[in-house]
Amino acid sequence: MVSDLEKRILEYIEANYRRFINILSDLIGIETVSAWKDNNVMKKGAEVVATLLKDIGFRAEIRSYGGHPIVLGELGKGPKSILIYNHYDVQPPDPLELWSTRPFELVEKDGKLYGRGVADNKGNIAARLGAIEALAPYLDELGLKIKYIIEGEEEIGSPTLHKAVEDLKQWLKADGGFWETGYVDRRDRLRIPLGFKGMVYIEVILRGASRDVHSGLAPLIPNPVWRLAKFLTLLKDPNGRILVPWIYEDIEHLGSEAEELLKELDIEELEKLKKELGIREFAEGLNGFKALRKLHLEPSLNISGLYAGYTGKGSKTIVPSLVGVKIDIRLVPGQKPSKIIDRFKEFLKENGLGDAEIIIHGAYPSGYTRPSEK
Amino acid sequence: MVSDLEKRILEYIEANYRRFINILSDLIGIETVSAWKDNNVMKKGAEVVATLLKDIGFRAEIRSYGGHPIVLGELGKGPKSILIYNHYDVQPPDPLELWSTRPFELVEKDGKLYGRGVADNKGNIAARLGAIEALAPYLDELGLKIKYIIEGEEEIGSPTLHKAVEDLKQWLKADGGFWETGYVDRRDRLRIPLGFKGMVYIEVILRGASRDVHSGLAPLIPNPVWRLAKFLTLLKDPNGRILVPWIYEDIEHLGSEAEELLKELDIEELEKLKKELGIREFAEGLNGFKALRKLHLEPSLNISGLYAGYTGKGSKTIVPSLVGVKIDIRLVPGQKPSKIIDRFKEFLKENGLGDAEIIIHGAYPSGYTRPSEK
Repeated sequence: MVSDLEKRILEYIEANYRRFINILSDLIGIETVSAWKDNNVMKKGAEVVATLLKDIGFRAEIRSYGGHPIVLGELGKGPKSILIYNHYDVQPPDPLELWSTRPFELVEKDGKLYGRGVADNKGNIAARLGAIEALAPYLDELGLKIKYIIEGEEEIGSPTLHKAVEDLKQWLKADGGFWETGYVDRRDRLRIPLGFKGMVYIEVILRGASRDVHSGLAPLIPNPVWRLAKFLTLLKDPNGRILVPWIYEDIEHLGSEAEELLKELDIEELEKLKKELGIREFAEGLNGFKALRKLHLEPSLNISGLYAGYTGKGSKTIVPSLVGVKIDIRLVPGQKPSKIIDRFKEFLKENGLGDAEIIIHGAYPSGYTRPSEK
Repeated sequence: MVSDLEKRILEYIEANYRRFINILSDLIGIETVSAWKDNNVMKKGAEVVATLLKDIGFRAEIRSYGGHPIVLGELGKGPKSILIYNHYDVQPPDPLELWSTRPFELVEKDGKLYGRGVADNKGNIAARLGAIEALAPYLDELGLKIKYIIEGEEEIGSPTLHKAVEDLKQWLKADGGFWETGYVDRRDRLRIPLGFKGMVYIEVILRGASRDVHSGLAPLIPNPVWRLAKFLTLLKDPNGRILVPWIYEDIEHLGSEAEELLKELDIEELEKLKKELGIREFAEGLNGFKALRKLHLEPSLNISGLYAGYTGKGSKTIVPSLVGVKIDIRLVPGQKPSKIIDRFKEFLKENGLGDAEIIIHGAYPSGYTRPSEK
């Protein structure tokens, strides 16, 4: 049964729906790609988010801890408080040619909204702010205080968030907290994630000559691509099986409780995923429960990007002066990012790539709540 | 001793030197990157070249054989005729960040000229046209006819030039002919190449999912990079040694005559090359005569480009939907491009990559004149 309060709130949302969509449209229009490190754009993104909070009545401020700014907001008196985390940054829109709409323009088509950040996570910010706005007149009546922290570096591994957490330890205390992604499964059941994998994002660069050289000289000029290719075959086989045992070190198994929950997931979604992505077989020929287990409870090792020499259209004849690979390793409970990074570096050295340049783009451990945790 | 004619010509060149540089500047300013396939720009490039020919008195015309236009010009009555080949297209200027000047702007610095095409080969066109202009009043006196053919597809393997040659067979007949690159060695000795290697330029594309997928799904989604990495290790080892014997099939050895000429080359240039390019060792540890032999008389296999997923700055977490590699194979006398392409395709299939998409960007055999040939 819908209470009177609920009814009023739902009516308010209905009446203001178009305006909420316009707010999302404004958010999508700001190109807050954290990986591009355009400080002016990120600052503008934070300012717009802070203004949106203030418009609803939040006491809001913007802070920086050496990276892209973080927006903080507080609404209501409590005594109970809830903490919401989110981020206003997005992933780069590349490859642009695969977009059928402009990435930074909100487009409505067949009842769906398209634009970079609609699903991750500006859509959630706009929806949540709409809900809070509708709820705002009743917060005191409900005895609720809302704290909102919205950062700008989630997509690059939140490199300065830990400093904010350290600094704001007192302020962040709350009776409950969440980060929303808001997906439902194909049976319309809400997904409530109880944790997330950790991440180590490593870029490895190998160099040959000090500049690209005409490939007429190829018999003489060392091409770093051959060295990298050999190294990559030591990490994974062509079927996607991880070959380095150190990826599986220190895993703290979540036990039968987690496995039981996995069984409640819809295994048929895997088949639908295959169809949607045009895949005949999953990596390693995985299927069914084994696939779900690997997906949710095991670490992973992936190449997100690879580049050397001429990558444009047509041909150019050069020996590339460098080759780079972007590798993301996802960690499960028990695994420490710093140890995985050390292992990775050792492995490079053991295999003759001690001269490689290494850039760590992100490193954070996994986080989780046990299903039975109170 | 300088003849009176020579003196007059040299004086003319001296007096008009600035104007010739300006002509080069105009040529550099047109972005005739054949790989970009911008038909309007290429057409403009051809028109400017044709106008330059006409300004000197050439009967000039532009023809197309399905690709970028070819400029033809004829000056003088003969009876002796000389045919000059050149090209107005250039290589792509990437990577842009390694240029300290703008690629399509001629810049003079410390007595040197910088700009895309100065060395290959617009500088030669401008210099040659300057020389011909100075010589033009005396052509009849010398009994000389000059035929000039300037194409726009040299940097992408001249895919339509053979049609032009077939069509213009009669017109192309001449008592002598050359293509100039105009390099001198470090002892200021003019290099006169007696041939060039052939080329097969192959792009191989392997696909996984139908689109890039968030790398949270990495344990399931096949990443084509692992398959390609394995394949590349079968072509060359990390030191640059070619592992596939079919690269060496059908070689027609040029014999001791060619090897004797190699010995006249300045072996010290190899050490200087190393220093210039910041290389400690050549590929395979090659040195001295062995290096020269491999460089000039053996086929080569090189990776000019490699790309997958996110290649921009910072991080993006995806499983790439495709990986591509651009491979250039240089051929020596006796080797047929079509056979090498077949071998390459067979090799892909034998190693489980029969699903690869293959694009042939260029294929032509080597050409040569035996040193003793009259």
